[in-house]
Amino acid sequence: MREKTTHAEFVEIPVSVRYAETDRMGIVYYANYLVWFEVGRVAWCRAKGFQYAEMESREERLMVVAEAGCRYKAPAHFGEDIIVRTALAKATDRVIRYRYEVVGKDSGQLLATGETAHVVTDPEFRPARLPDSYRRYFSLPPRRH
Amino acid sequence: MREKTTHAEFVEIPVSVRYAETDRMGIVYYANYLVWFEVGRVAWCRAKGFQYAEMESREERLMVVAEAGCRYKAPAHFGEDIIVRTALAKATDRVIRYRYEVVGKDSGQLLATGETAHVVTDPEFRPARLPDSYRRYFSLPPRRH
Amino acid sequence: MREKTTHAEFVEIPVSVRYAETDRMGIVYYANYLVWFEVGRVAWCRAKGFQYAEMESREERLMVVAEAGCRYKAPAHFGEDIIVRTALAKATDRVIRYRYEVVGKDSGQLLATGETAHVVTDPEFRPARLPDSYRRYFSLPPRRH
Amino acid sequence: MREKTTHAEFVEIPVSVRYAETDRMGIVYYANYLVWFEVGRVAWCRAKGFQYAEMESREERLMVVAEAGCRYKAPAHFGEDIIVRTALAKATDRVIRYRYEVVGKDSGQLLATGETAHVVTDPEFRPARLPDSYRRYFSLPPRRH
Repeated sequence: MREKTTHAEFVEIPVSVRYAETDRMGIVYYANYLVWFEVGRVAWCRAKGFQYAEMESREERLMVVAEAGCRYKAPAHFGEDIIVRTALAKATDRVIRYRYEVVGKDSGQLLATGETAHVVTDPEFRPARLPDSYRRYFSLPPRRH
Repeated sequence: MREKTTHAEFVEIPVSVRYAETDRMGIVYYANYLVWFEVGRVAWCRAKGFQYAEMESREERLMVVAEAGCRYKAPAHFGEDIIVRTALAKATDRVIRYRYEVVGKDSGQLLATGETAHVVTDPEFRPARLPDSYRRYFSLPPRRH
Repeated sequence: MREKTTHAEFVEIPVSVRYAETDRMGIVYYANYLVWFEVGRVAWCRAKGFQYAEMESREERLMVVAEAGCRYKAPAHFGEDIIVRTALAKATDRVIRYRYEVVGKDSGQLLATGETAHVVTDPEFRPARLPDSYRRYFSLPPRRH
Repeated sequence: MREKTTHAEFVEIPVSVRYAETDRMGIVYYANYLVWFEVGRVAWCRAKGFQYAEMESREERLMVVAEAGCRYKAPAHFGEDIIVRTALAKATDRVIRYRYEVVGKDSGQLLATGETAHVVTDPEFRPARLPDSYRRYFSLPPRRH
């Protein structure tokens, strides 16, 4: 469960496909790729130096999903190890966009690509800004006061 | 999505098996029966006259799962309609026990039986009592003061 | 669990939000909307006159997801009843596209919109065509021979 | 994602709690422990020297769940790393029983215990026997002919 930054942008994390994630086609059910994207985002945060869970509990800032998309290139199977690659696509202090690649660990085959957009909110889901101390994780310059 | 009480004890609710709930064996993945039990409990509450969601939000009482068990008799398939039957097995104002039957809607075949036990807590997961106004739903006599 | 066609195009099916579908934000986890889209597609097939499960088992034709997207407008909560509205967006005998709306049942509020694209394949995931007898369900003219 | 045998019986595998696995109580939804048990079983098989996926595809033998139970001792949270510990409880060439412990990785706290029973079947779910070459993984003596 270690992640590393590659190509100066993508953070990678290995995931073992679970039986629970397959469906009766014998392949991974399509909604589960969005769960893997979440695993990728959490790994991305950790690689950048913070815990997403702490941003929620200490800073009371949520990153609520506003958009998600996925293109499925080749099926993933139970017993297969995959890599979820996550990169920041674009960030302001109000909206964060990530993109993802799901790749077969051994084959290197591209299984899926995707993207998500997140709105920063307070715990009542009202629009908010990233905490100032988190700006650097998203390559945002310090705010002038 | 209507439920009715039968045999003076079981509350029934129909559920359509989702593709997402199957696995690569072509049948419903075993953990999903516990999700169906939750659907059954919610239907049971509604049949008794209250909304579980309101008990949580207004009364600040949670029913935290302490035990769950399931015996799988015959597989359930996508495209099949099933009935989840839920009955109160035992209740005090601190611990509630339910039992369940999952039955094929057309076949009437028993697919699974199960049971769960729930501890009443406050939102910090400390042991608590059922709100007095909810005692009657669980056939508990009014509390003497 | 009945569905009806509205506005000459959308098929509607009610869904009760499950506790299992929520996450620690207190709202429905974003991947579960794709499960609801599946529930919508299955209802669409039934409204058109066929069972998707039978197309798989009898005709040995799968509709493998190639793309999925969702835009989240407002959160959905446990204890809420929603409507999933499904329409055919575009169809050839090789690629089928659906679009979806998720709406609060009581509020009528638009909670999310989405779309999926599906490739018709054989059980080995090789590209195939819709069975001729299914063309009419997708408003495709009979094939000339 | 490495597992090791401890106490001559339990196989351990670390699991990071996913956001998707939590519910609106802020803790892991109860059905997801059964998914973790599956992760534990797969790790157990690998530690013993075989891939469960290969037993299914090459030997055409399934281990269909017949019973599952879980006792929840303390809640698990997003952002927490847990350990799933899996041991063989009892095995014949027709029925396999496992038991599980879910433990906080840092705290060492016992979060849950559980057990599952599995029936060996062929792909049509008819009772069958473990393949002879798999008997040793379950500490069963060679069959006499």
